Amino acid sequence: MDTTQASSQAPVWNGRRNEKKRRLEALGKLANGRVIPTNRIVEALEILIAPGDRVVLEGNNQKQADFLSRALARVNPGKLHDLHMIMPSVGRPEHLDLFERGIARKLDFSFSGPQSLRISQLLEDDLLEIGAIHTYIELYARLFVDLIPNVALVAAYKADRHGNLYTGPSTEDTPPIVEAAAFKDGIVIAQVNELVEDESELPRVDIPGSWVDFVVVADQPFFIEPLFTRDPRLIKPVHVLMAMMAIRGIYERHQVQSLNHGLGFNTAAIELLLPTYGEKLGLKGKICKHWTLNPHPTLIPAIESGWVESVHCFGGELGMEEYIRARPDVFFTGADGSLRSNRAYCQMAGQYAVDMFIGSTLQMDADGHSSTVTRGRIAGFGGAPNMGHDPRGRRHATPAWLDLLQTDNPLERGKKLVVQMVETYQPGDKPTFVESLDAIDVAKAASMPLAPVMVYGDDVTHVLTEEGIAYLYKARSLEERREMIAAVAGVTPIGMRHDPKKTSEMRRQGLIALPEDLGVDRAEATRSQLAAKSIAELVEWSDGLYNPPARFRSW
Amino acid sequence: MDTTQASSQAPVWNGRRNEKKRRLEALGKLANGRVIPTNRIVEALEILIAPGDRVVLEGNNQKQADFLSRALARVNPGKLHDLHMIMPSVGRPEHLDLFERGIARKLDFSFSGPQSLRISQLLEDDLLEIGAIHTYIELYARLFVDLIPNVALVAAYKADRHGNLYTGPSTEDTPPIVEAAAFKDGIVIAQVNELVEDESELPRVDIPGSWVDFVVVADQPFFIEPLFTRDPRLIKPVHVLMAMMAIRGIYERHQVQSLNHGLGFNTAAIELLLPTYGEKLGLKGKICKHWTLNPHPTLIPAIESGWVESVHCFGGELGMEEYIRARPDVFFTGADGSLRSNRAYCQMAGQYAVDMFIGSTLQMDADGHSSTVTRGRIAGFGGAPNMGHDPRGRRHATPAWLDLLQTDNPLERGKKLVVQMVETYQPGDKPTFVESLDAIDVAKAASMPLAPVMVYGDDVTHVLTEEGIAYLYKARSLEERREMIAAVAGVTPIGMRHDPKKTSEMRRQGLIALPEDLGVDRAEATRSQLAAKSIAELVEWSDGLYNPPARFRSW
Repeated sequence: MDTTQASSQAPVWNGRRNEKKRRLEALGKLANGRVIPTNRIVEALEILIAPGDRVVLEGNNQKQADFLSRALARVNPGKLHDLHMIMPSVGRPEHLDLFERGIARKLDFSFSGPQSLRISQLLEDDLLEIGAIHTYIELYARLFVDLIPNVALVAAYKADRHGNLYTGPSTEDTPPIVEAAAFKDGIVIAQVNELVEDESELPRVDIPGSWVDFVVVADQPFFIEPLFTRDPRLIKPVHVLMAMMAIRGIYERHQVQSLNHGLGFNTAAIELLLPTYGEKLGLKGKICKHWTLNPHPTLIPAIESGWVESVHCFGGELGMEEYIRARPDVFFTGADGSLRSNRAYCQMAGQYAVDMFIGSTLQMDADGHSSTVTRGRIAGFGGAPNMGHDPRGRRHATPAWLDLLQTDNPLERGKKLVVQMVETYQPGDKPTFVESLDAIDVAKAASMPLAPVMVYGDDVTHVLTEEGIAYLYKARSLEERREMIAAVAGVTPIGMRHDPKKTSEMRRQGLIALPEDLGVDRAEATRSQLAAKSIAELVEWSDGLYNPPARFRSW
Repeated sequence: MDTTQASSQAPVWNGRRNEKKRRLEALGKLANGRVIPTNRIVEALEILIAPGDRVVLEGNNQKQADFLSRALARVNPGKLHDLHMIMPSVGRPEHLDLFERGIARKLDFSFSGPQSLRISQLLEDDLLEIGAIHTYIELYARLFVDLIPNVALVAAYKADRHGNLYTGPSTEDTPPIVEAAAFKDGIVIAQVNELVEDESELPRVDIPGSWVDFVVVADQPFFIEPLFTRDPRLIKPVHVLMAMMAIRGIYERHQVQSLNHGLGFNTAAIELLLPTYGEKLGLKGKICKHWTLNPHPTLIPAIESGWVESVHCFGGELGMEEYIRARPDVFFTGADGSLRSNRAYCQMAGQYAVDMFIGSTLQMDADGHSSTVTRGRIAGFGGAPNMGHDPRGRRHATPAWLDLLQTDNPLERGKKLVVQMVETYQPGDKPTFVESLDAIDVAKAASMPLAPVMVYGDDVTHVLTEEGIAYLYKARSLEERREMIAAVAGVTPIGMRHDPKKTSEMRRQGLIALPEDLGVDRAEATRSQLAAKSIAELVEWSDGLYNPPARFRSW
């Protein structure tokens, strides 16, 4: 669009609005009001989307607009091609069929767990071009700046005929995706599991109908995965040991009151130690009060024991619906009783409002840079980089944040705690601590402008391994940071650089701490410390309210 | 609430829900459905709020829930006391009457322009306790973590009897404030200028009725201020000079395509030079395409000349309504045609999605730390610290961001441009560059845990004065950063530290640039370069669509 005054034609200021009007008119009687018939969705997409469009597709961490993605993969590539797909998560095979079939060309995304290998292959075959790999919140932010969508395809549990949506426990990414399209003359299409007549039949309204152009009843309920359920049976004694060290050497020491946990077994072990080990240490009410977190089933015993004042959720978790409904003082719920999750706000809170992020990684180099990207796989990081850094725009103080001050300079700031909790070796005898991250080679091979680093070394404040804790925020130089990392890196190539003669001096200076420095008895690190040792015990703790998906049931 | 299993009483999990129910029942027939009669609002607040409650009051940058704040200031302090007020902006006298009258005790806030002096006094008189001073987005984030509200008091243009709200151009802070209360069994009360029967009479729905408990028609339309209107008549030749330097030495050099502007005359001058000086340099379509910004009237000539692809807004601006309605390709608008602003998303975008933040300050020290807090005034910073730092969770690259790379280390990241644009002296002959920020003394006097620094020195990439530009991101040491700042600090005490013998070497190394190094001719820096020299000319550019408030009219 040329809007230059000097141009011969009068400038057009409502091009997007006219184009939307044209498409809606072209759809004609195909839709019944706002309702597209299920069996005509492919046809409708061919009319409502145009070649070259930017299309946001709600594939997110758990919930998938999979009816719409399957329909989009079936359009005629002669009619619809060169789409620029924007997807928080690339999780389903048809997401990449779009590229294989020539329907889509460019991809901006945040996370691509199971499809990461195929993305690499499509890239190599020149069938796919990557815009960038983002954190979730960064991707949403660009929807309002330089990635404004033409079309948004989202998923909800229920809609009424006016387009009002009930997204309930899985509100997740829907609000910013819909807002960016709806308020820039984009077209918003929602697949729903169920259509009702009007608002009075919806449990509540999560997205107002005036933001939604069309709803379509999906051929089957949207796909959703219980990604945050960890079976306590798989927690090993080494996880218990590391969890005990975390509680004593980090949570208690810094008085961590608000936090985010990653989804590994390490942090699941911490959750399950709070009502036992944590209780014994007298820490209840002193640490871990406010959480930004998916509704982890392993948090149930801590909630039931009165540890947890509040949990704000990125998304829902299958099986946790009735438990959450019965615990509204802890979770955010609507007047109808079901969870309200919101990934954008929870990421914002996980960045700005919490004392600590604690997570894990597959590789860490000598400087503390880490990545979960390994050879041949372009995975993305979801929310980790957003929460795994010190937000320098933060201006409020908390005890934990202030505890990381190193001087009494009135212009020094505190720090968010960014903890990497890793075993020195991954399964299959691969060292976690490596000379060089695979991410660097992946970036070279794919001509990426940046190596896909998850958390940068200078953002990490603590590294915790089964060997000990390195208090990296105390490092006075890059050299010292390297020494501290090496000291807890075990018998990996990086760990072998550590000079054992320096260990006691580093312990004395408080740069590192071994279990014995923290009063952690290795002999106590057994599974018997876990408040629940199985999914069945989590169900018991929940008084039967937690209803685990079949694959987690062994009874 | 004690939810310990060991406790003798059964744990309570729906305390907030029961308490909400109790209050709604206590209100009885005072409300007619969801509508509270205007003349009974004080009575209603005394019933719906309880002593010690956390109350979020929507006083934001422009829009004020002033009917509700005036009503709250009139409640009986015997009934309602010790409130913990959470307010994005403390802008009105009655906001502090709450503390003087003993109704409120604690305050968490972001910005307090005109009331900053009185906050200091109340603090000194021990009538007010400050929780913390936040950036906007940080404050919203805490509403979901450790500052979960009991009551939210907000403002909208219109509501229907079901509680659906039309916030239109002034949506601003309303969504996160309402969400945090509505989904944690808080009570949401909205004052509106107009009540209609049902949704069909609302232009659109911005907040669904199922999130809102009560609406009340205000005694007069909510107070709103045109804070972002700068009269071009007040732009001086020195602003034009600095704007020319910015365009050549920063925007063009780094290819800045997405950005936020502060509200000073310096940046207004840049906006007004794009269609003249910028055009002459052939930069149209190459820089300044995507904006996160309130709808500045001084941006009209650049928009009309085809420079601006998109603007996402924090809030609205009085007088810009019809202009925005006629430019939907540029602004975010609803199906009804009016602006949709959203401060949370725009701050998120201003943090994560733009190449550059450029703003101003009142004081900067030798290390580049800056603050607008001066003696006796506790002002807060609104959004500046959030946008004025390098967001380290960012993982996408743009030309400007990559241009700040200093090495070819594959693990080095690019940087967001954070530009401070200041004259070396403030009006009244006060030096901008000072030995020590007043903020340090203010913090000491008020026993604040942190000095209220707006932008920290290590976050600033460029300092631009009438003397020249210091490219701080190139500094290889703190010492070098100091020298670069001193070199452009004029005849201030800090500037006097500069050794003029070093100037040419610093210019040669590209550490600093003087106007002549940038090809900027001082003689050309006249007001004649401005695309509009008055508000009347802005109206002309807008084809009569911009309708400036009376105080800006001289005709």
